[in-house]
Amino acid sequence: MIALLLGSHGKFAKEALESAKMIVGEQENTTSFSLEENMDLKMTIDSAQDAFNTLNTSEGVLLLTDIMGGTPTNVSTVIHKKNPNTRLLAGFNLPILVEALLNRSMELDELVDYLKEQFPGTLSDVS
Amino acid sequence: MIALLLGSHGKFAKEALESAKMIVGEQENTTSFSLEENMDLKMTIDSAQDAFNTLNTSEGVLLLTDIMGGTPTNVSTVIHKKNPNTRLLAGFNLPILVEALLNRSMELDELVDYLKEQFPGTLSDVS
Repeated sequence: MIALLLGSHGKFAKEALESAKMIVGEQENTTSFSLEENMDLKMTIDSAQDAFNTLNTSEGVLLLTDIMGGTPTNVSTVIHKKNPNTRLLAGFNLPILVEALLNRSMELDELVDYLKEQFPGTLSDVS
Repeated sequence: MIALLLGSHGKFAKEALESAKMIVGEQENTTSFSLEENMDLKMTIDSAQDAFNTLNTSEGVLLLTDIMGGTPTNVSTVIHKKNPNTRLLAGFNLPILVEALLNRSMELDELVDYLKEQFPGTLSDVS
């Protein structure tokens, strides 16, 4: 099952995951990182990498971030480039997150294509 | 300036607003409501109405919710129908929220049209 790492300014990503779980039930192999006001770039990269390290990456990792051009997306680009079998999409909303969670048995590239098809124009594919 | 009321399962909406403020700065005349696990429909409607009542509605209110078909969207439909000069869009993400916050000096219908044009296929217009 594909792992999911969400990243955002503040706790948007963390709470998006909590909200999605209210809809689709408890989810394993998902986590998030937050860019807080007091964090510099190095701290944010470390935080994202620490979150990444908790995941079972054997089936690949989908990175979902809040907004194109923002620091959480840029930091996720670093994680993506360092780790094969990861994909990065920026600009998720709750329908996309729910759909991603429900289709984690797909191949990673298949899931990315599926999300881009189901939600045309919403996601920026950074990978 | 158009008021903004966000609603979601859990604290997704609240934290989305906090995240957006990290990008565009502090924002007046914005608030949110949360559907928590222990809340029934009546409590959720009351919570949404209480949040609505804190807003200056003179220039209209844009209601943004997490996901079409969910209780927060259904509750916002009740608020929308009771209150003229409101519009309701479901399925926001952070880029949409930022764009909405930056363009609150538009007329309400103009802002809704603008968001639907800028983010085609992302939002469900419930109003």
